[in-house]
Amino acid sequence: MLAPGATIGILGGGQLARMLALAGARLGLKAHVFSPVPDDPAFDVCAAGTQAGFDDEAALAGFAESVDVVTYEFENVPARTAQVLEAHRPVRPNPRALALTQDRLVEKQFIRSLGVATADFVAVDNAGALPRAVARLGRNSILKTRRLGYDGKGQTQLRDGGDLAVAFRTLGGAACILESVAPFTKEVSVVAARGLNGEFRAYDVCENLHEHHILARTLAPAEIAEATAAEAIDIARRIAEAAAYVGVIAVEMFVVMKGERETLLVNEIAPRVHNSGHWTLDGALTSQFEQHMRAIAGWPLGSTHRHGHVEMRNLIGADVDAWPELARENGVCLHLYGKKETRAGRKMGHVTRVFSD
Amino acid sequence: MLAPGATIGILGGGQLARMLALAGARLGLKAHVFSPVPDDPAFDVCAAGTQAGFDDEAALAGFAESVDVVTYEFENVPARTAQVLEAHRPVRPNPRALALTQDRLVEKQFIRSLGVATADFVAVDNAGALPRAVARLGRNSILKTRRLGYDGKGQTQLRDGGDLAVAFRTLGGAACILESVAPFTKEVSVVAARGLNGEFRAYDVCENLHEHHILARTLAPAEIAEATAAEAIDIARRIAEAAAYVGVIAVEMFVVMKGERETLLVNEIAPRVHNSGHWTLDGALTSQFEQHMRAIAGWPLGSTHRHGHVEMRNLIGADVDAWPELARENGVCLHLYGKKETRAGRKMGHVTRVFSD
Repeated sequence: MLAPGATIGILGGGQLARMLALAGARLGLKAHVFSPVPDDPAFDVCAAGTQAGFDDEAALAGFAESVDVVTYEFENVPARTAQVLEAHRPVRPNPRALALTQDRLVEKQFIRSLGVATADFVAVDNAGALPRAVARLGRNSILKTRRLGYDGKGQTQLRDGGDLAVAFRTLGGAACILESVAPFTKEVSVVAARGLNGEFRAYDVCENLHEHHILARTLAPAEIAEATAAEAIDIARRIAEAAAYVGVIAVEMFVVMKGERETLLVNEIAPRVHNSGHWTLDGALTSQFEQHMRAIAGWPLGSTHRHGHVEMRNLIGADVDAWPELARENGVCLHLYGKKETRAGRKMGHVTRVFSD
Repeated sequence: MLAPGATIGILGGGQLARMLALAGARLGLKAHVFSPVPDDPAFDVCAAGTQAGFDDEAALAGFAESVDVVTYEFENVPARTAQVLEAHRPVRPNPRALALTQDRLVEKQFIRSLGVATADFVAVDNAGALPRAVARLGRNSILKTRRLGYDGKGQTQLRDGGDLAVAFRTLGGAACILESVAPFTKEVSVVAARGLNGEFRAYDVCENLHEHHILARTLAPAEIAEATAAEAIDIARRIAEAAAYVGVIAVEMFVVMKGERETLLVNEIAPRVHNSGHWTLDGALTSQFEQHMRAIAGWPLGSTHRHGHVEMRNLIGADVDAWPELARENGVCLHLYGKKETRAGRKMGHVTRVFSD
């Protein structure tokens, strides 16, 4: 267990890093933020900051030496960066979890290896492989780059009669994976944490509503059968255990009806705190951010008790201009991320509403 | 209304400043902390810090120029300090509230002027005035310095047969006030906020339990009659209005039984966020720290909705050594203040337990 006063190194300086730093401060833990972006909002709330590139090995080494443990707010940490850091300090979650989730093909194969269902998929290494993949999965499929996709970036839905070669080129010619579109009725996620000693705690499963491929709203709890919720949490536990995971993990799933029965397909694993867990800041006894800090500091995990029914809504781009009205609305908890510039599609803040059960 | 991105200047760098800075960050407000103490814990969570004395007028002016509004975490801000700051930026709460609460005699006279009851008191300007004061109030009285007292410092309980001249000298020969000991059954406090537009919102009245003159525990809500609670909140409102107050204010009161009826005596006003409001961090929709930031930024006040029955317990001195067990205890919200050194009597952190109503 790291004692209070210890310093947590955080790679990345966006809103997730910021909320991690704020949560750590409650526990008496200091944050040292490492980000290449000078105005990143996490720099405003940390005890120390390093502005340098993720390929600046001297800066990385100095950063690692100055902290007690390293964590990150995003999964696309370059492998070499993680390697340099690991030579100096523990990196949690461990870089294997990064490797598992940075590549959609590796990720899906890992999930399947646990006996957990996913949508059907086929590797598409080059343009020539796409027609064969389509022959297997059909046109109701999404072509995704294996690496570096988020918020709908790096993916394209195939169209009937569309030119497959064009679709492949649209994504830059990178190695891809073709995925069947799951006929889902709901998208849900499990936000959970695994401690250094293997302890596992999950928040109630929540339901996610996307707009333009970006999370718009989360409802906790999800309106799904109890057995489905228990299965979803069990899947997250098996994934976390198989990855020897330490920290908060989010597992996104589709709910697909088989007759009257809800079944689950895992869509994606995020090896970090997750947007669909933001509701825990106001709606749970321990926020996902504190939970992550507890886990990576080797502390016992906190209570995931939920205060009521919770709705989280993202403020994306110009949505944030409504802050004066939102600040006035009774019962709304407002979170603004301190980003200097409002841009379309940029996550600027979120609001939570908690309703008594 | 200050827009998100604005900077709040905070005088003082202790745990209250730290929790104010953290709460402001949620709203996208930056904090600039001014404190003479290099290792003060608020420096670890703010966008900017100035380490300088409260009599360093150049540093104060530079600090004020760099922020949008100035607030403070403690009432003993020197008058001259407030004056220098006010020449540059709004100071909220206004320095008149400081003047009213820095001097126990002025404070009590102000409270009485509103038709609000206090314990009986007599000014004791010098040692010679003490016997006359005792003749009026009796020996069941407490002699307190008019200025600079907190947590039981600057006060002494008179004893039967004790030497009055010695008692006066114990307090350093400063101007004093003699106060009757109220035969109270409970100590309660109202933590409330008044906005820039006069809007007023109070949290539920809470009950405070002191040990060795330091707050040990707070229970919310206080077990008092509804009418008593309503009167307590009304008293806080009248005080805030009379002082043209902006920000969070705490009013400590004694509950004294008159026959079957609970009556209230105001003991003390704190022109700031208050230890007896710490429970709001986990037990209310808006914490007192966010509420203060909203008020001084000219924002609408947030909901004071309480999640359940709440108990807050201070971790004083070596109490904090129990942090590993507290971190493990289910349902305990742990707050550690990031202070480098544990000292007897020093507030090191607190824990909150929330029980569903």
